[in-house]
Amino acid sequence: MKQPATPRFAPAHHDGSPLYVSTSAPSIGDGVELRVRVSRELEVVAVHARSTPDGEPRFDLATPETAEAVADEIWWRVRVPVVNPELSYRFVLQTPGGALWLTAAGLSRTEVTDDTDFLISTAPPAPSWSDGAVVYEIFLDRFARSEAWERPALPEWADEASWTDRVPWGTERALQQVYGGDLHGVVERLDHLVALGVDVIYLTPFFPSRSNHRYDSTTFSTVDPLLGGDDGLRRLTDAAHARGMRVIGDITLNHSGDGHEWFRRALADPGSAERDFYFIDPDDESYASFCGVPTLPTFDHRSSELRARLYDGEESVIRRGVRDWGLDGWRVDVAQSAGRHGTVELNDLVARRTRGSLDPGHLLLAENQFDASRALRGEGWHGTMSYAGFSRPVWSWLARERSHEFWGTPGPIPQYTAADVRAVMTMYSSRIPWRSYSHNLTLIDSHDTARFRSIAGADRQLLAAALMFALPGIPMVFAGDEVGVEGVHLEDGRRPFPWDPEEWDPDAWSVYRELIALRRGHEALRTGGLRWLHASDDVLIFERASETGSVLVLVARDAHEPLTSPVDGASLIDGDDLVAGAPIPGEGARFGIWEVSR
Amino acid sequence: MKQPATPRFAPAHHDGSPLYVSTSAPSIGDGVELRVRVSRELEVVAVHARSTPDGEPRFDLATPETAEAVADEIWWRVRVPVVNPELSYRFVLQTPGGALWLTAAGLSRTEVTDDTDFLISTAPPAPSWSDGAVVYEIFLDRFARSEAWERPALPEWADEASWTDRVPWGTERALQQVYGGDLHGVVERLDHLVALGVDVIYLTPFFPSRSNHRYDSTTFSTVDPLLGGDDGLRRLTDAAHARGMRVIGDITLNHSGDGHEWFRRALADPGSAERDFYFIDPDDESYASFCGVPTLPTFDHRSSELRARLYDGEESVIRRGVRDWGLDGWRVDVAQSAGRHGTVELNDLVARRTRGSLDPGHLLLAENQFDASRALRGEGWHGTMSYAGFSRPVWSWLARERSHEFWGTPGPIPQYTAADVRAVMTMYSSRIPWRSYSHNLTLIDSHDTARFRSIAGADRQLLAAALMFALPGIPMVFAGDEVGVEGVHLEDGRRPFPWDPEEWDPDAWSVYRELIALRRGHEALRTGGLRWLHASDDVLIFERASETGSVLVLVARDAHEPLTSPVDGASLIDGDDLVAGAPIPGEGARFGIWEVSR
Repeated sequence: MKQPATPRFAPAHHDGSPLYVSTSAPSIGDGVELRVRVSRELEVVAVHARSTPDGEPRFDLATPETAEAVADEIWWRVRVPVVNPELSYRFVLQTPGGALWLTAAGLSRTEVTDDTDFLISTAPPAPSWSDGAVVYEIFLDRFARSEAWERPALPEWADEASWTDRVPWGTERALQQVYGGDLHGVVERLDHLVALGVDVIYLTPFFPSRSNHRYDSTTFSTVDPLLGGDDGLRRLTDAAHARGMRVIGDITLNHSGDGHEWFRRALADPGSAERDFYFIDPDDESYASFCGVPTLPTFDHRSSELRARLYDGEESVIRRGVRDWGLDGWRVDVAQSAGRHGTVELNDLVARRTRGSLDPGHLLLAENQFDASRALRGEGWHGTMSYAGFSRPVWSWLARERSHEFWGTPGPIPQYTAADVRAVMTMYSSRIPWRSYSHNLTLIDSHDTARFRSIAGADRQLLAAALMFALPGIPMVFAGDEVGVEGVHLEDGRRPFPWDPEEWDPDAWSVYRELIALRRGHEALRTGGLRWLHASDDVLIFERASETGSVLVLVARDAHEPLTSPVDGASLIDGDDLVAGAPIPGEGARFGIWEVSR
Repeated sequence: MKQPATPRFAPAHHDGSPLYVSTSAPSIGDGVELRVRVSRELEVVAVHARSTPDGEPRFDLATPETAEAVADEIWWRVRVPVVNPELSYRFVLQTPGGALWLTAAGLSRTEVTDDTDFLISTAPPAPSWSDGAVVYEIFLDRFARSEAWERPALPEWADEASWTDRVPWGTERALQQVYGGDLHGVVERLDHLVALGVDVIYLTPFFPSRSNHRYDSTTFSTVDPLLGGDDGLRRLTDAAHARGMRVIGDITLNHSGDGHEWFRRALADPGSAERDFYFIDPDDESYASFCGVPTLPTFDHRSSELRARLYDGEESVIRRGVRDWGLDGWRVDVAQSAGRHGTVELNDLVARRTRGSLDPGHLLLAENQFDASRALRGEGWHGTMSYAGFSRPVWSWLARERSHEFWGTPGPIPQYTAADVRAVMTMYSSRIPWRSYSHNLTLIDSHDTARFRSIAGADRQLLAAALMFALPGIPMVFAGDEVGVEGVHLEDGRRPFPWDPEEWDPDAWSVYRELIALRRGHEALRTGGLRWLHASDDVLIFERASETGSVLVLVARDAHEPLTSPVDGASLIDGDDLVAGAPIPGEGARFGIWEVSR
């Protein structure tokens, strides 16, 4: 049997959280105070911050904070000037064994490229209400059906389903099956959200369209009457605001539906303004479309009139959403493609202009399939859906049903160790400013995936939820996860919400509420920095730390190697306290969260 | 004693060289044929190339090339469409143990960020004459003084030195000491360059200025009369061309001297066009300057008139250099800063416009102090000075005098192993298109550093030279290195060239000529791909491979662990052949180069 090991933090740490950085949104001309904590074992004799003002290397000498020196570490402090819109920096620690570079990827004896330099942007930050927020995703047709209003008749494209029908996934007309969830239904169920503890509602598209997912909008001028129309949405945002909640919408800036009024006009009248909204070949009327799907014609953002209608103009959809409908922000669908087609490369412009059309109090999130690093550096999206940096590594560690479709990547779901999870999360977070990392949506599933529960099992869903609520990011609960809804495929995962509590998994309902309450109650979990403490095959341990204290989190998927606790910690959930020098129990799958004693 | 190990290549490889890629400069709408070689030991069952057309993931299935399958590896081939100006791609290999990602950083079991995806640009490539070129850097004041023309009297700022005087480095007027090297002198010494085997001359600045390094130009309209003027330069380019050589100039697009006619006019007349060429504060006439050095006022590239005079206009310096003076290209000083100041971020524009003002037959190289990745992706510089990707790792492995100044980084020169060298070179090369990597200037020293010989010793200079001439890149010899000139500091390294062969190191002179001849004679060394074979503390082994054959290169700084050769190889320099299965001698410092038998 192995001897117990005592996990230890890396011997030097810095991240972009308030504990280490005086401001995450300085102005040009300001200085930023940076702090870095260094273990005494490194015998560091000097610390410099290296920044690159106007492209030139600059080294600023740090001074040790003797007041805060504790037994085993020294904090160094240095002030670095903000010269350009983006401040990119790293540290170099002089040790008797040579220099060590410290970047967001960690320590390196050898010189490293700039892509993992710490980043601070002078662009306005995400709204403060989004710091520590928990999002609840509602797929409107499937969440709640109100009987208290006179709903219009279904349009021709729709097939009516009753709430308890099985989702007809994989069938030809699966996307036409309409269950009739609506905005009034959401209003009637807000108490459920209050009980759960979430504070932001993310609504999938609410524009008229010809499918139940509504990513193929036919107009952006009104909210779908099937859902309750403009008044229904306004009623929801008002009701949510009255409860201290926020609401964000979902828009496709990359494409419309082929039934969209703009596209119809573009095809009907080659002289119309709308003709320039799309990439239409004048010879054969063929047109560019999202991934070649003809029902989703691609927008051409070179058209200033299109830009005005989508984001730039006073009456743009983006502006009307916040002004007329009371939204608090937007989520942008397939944002990695918006503004991109052949030689047209306006993705950054789309992001910046959309952000520019919103007020500082509005949140702007984007979907991105893989590496969003370049889109998260400045004046564009506040964050993206963190599939690559959170969802996929979590699935790869915890999934049991490996043969499942995996975000379009060929082959089965990969098999990661906890160490792999740490490596991948570190890699993706190290390319972006901390404030983008901490405003990325973290999710274990969505309307675009199977339910994680059906891939990994009910027990492991709760382990994944613990990671989601304890790691940096904005956790997003896909409505139904909190009561144990299943779904083996993305369409199957869109099952109508089971409003009969008899059908709920009481464990999921209780653990979700507990984790959300914990997150909301602890500054360290909401906005604290992140230090990894241990990662092997089956167990992951990390610390979240803020000025007000620090929290230790352990997630084990199975029995693991014997470990000795390096700290005293008071358990914040069911379970024993941690005692420094005493064993950390490692008998099986579980998670633990402790408040570390100072 | 350790058992001999047999070095092995990584089990899968691809790079951007012609062996693996059908074209390094396709057009949009083309397809590119990619080949990847995979060891049979991986038991790969499927290979896909992943690209991201218009921002969306796309997987193309590869097919095995059965005809070229050899005993231990299979080559897979796949055609990938070129949709955008930049094609970025990676491979995913399905194995019984899970998927493996292959990027320019190597193989990974876990998903990796996009920054190491292989890159192909549709922008026009570097001129073909630069493929496999060897550059010779001439610091004009110190290379050769002609007595065959009537030279003008020295200006007031200059202190005359005679050719055999010691360089007065570290003294107050070190930069005013003029030894009188000139362009006619270079013409008279072209036979030396022919004997050495170099084919490109890089001249440090030749514009009038007020120092011997001339980075503080006082005009861009003429070549300094002290050097022979416009006629002297034209005579040199003509003479070089007659010998099949090319000549590139050196320009500061970031700043001028404070004695520059433009800056004088800007200060004298606030209404002048030149006023907008600089960042001058209207209140106190203070101005922005390079690293705060007041003699080097920073250009403001927002001025279209400045851009016209520097690169955009018909009479720009860049265009006149190639048209009137016969230059074949330019090297741009401190290019990492050009166009950057506070909120002004025009670095990419400076690079693209400068390139756009040149013909496809002209070469454009840039100086960059650290990570040039973002500046090397498309229509800007063809390559940069590879300090970070070549010079610094080589110094860090081979320097003996560790206390020496190291490119401005605090602390002594780092102590790298050969494995560190491989890691750093891989890291820096993996962020840029292969064609940028292979057109980066590789150098062991320059007019901006001490002579490497004085830092590492004569023996290790030759090891470093072997790396420089055998690795990808455009090797650059700083005039004098090939005969063993010393210099313990950057100014001391600018000693006048010793034209008496009695003062030469015959070993250096012979080894440099031999290595250059080898490089020029072997396609694999000129343009071949790179596979690392072995890297431990003291020995580095790699392969360069082209369609015409492959070459194995070994550089050992000391006696090293016993190794067994994996291949048969005929020695291309003094030394024994390699025999598969037989020991590779490892008694001490040396280098070896072998042609691998098919």
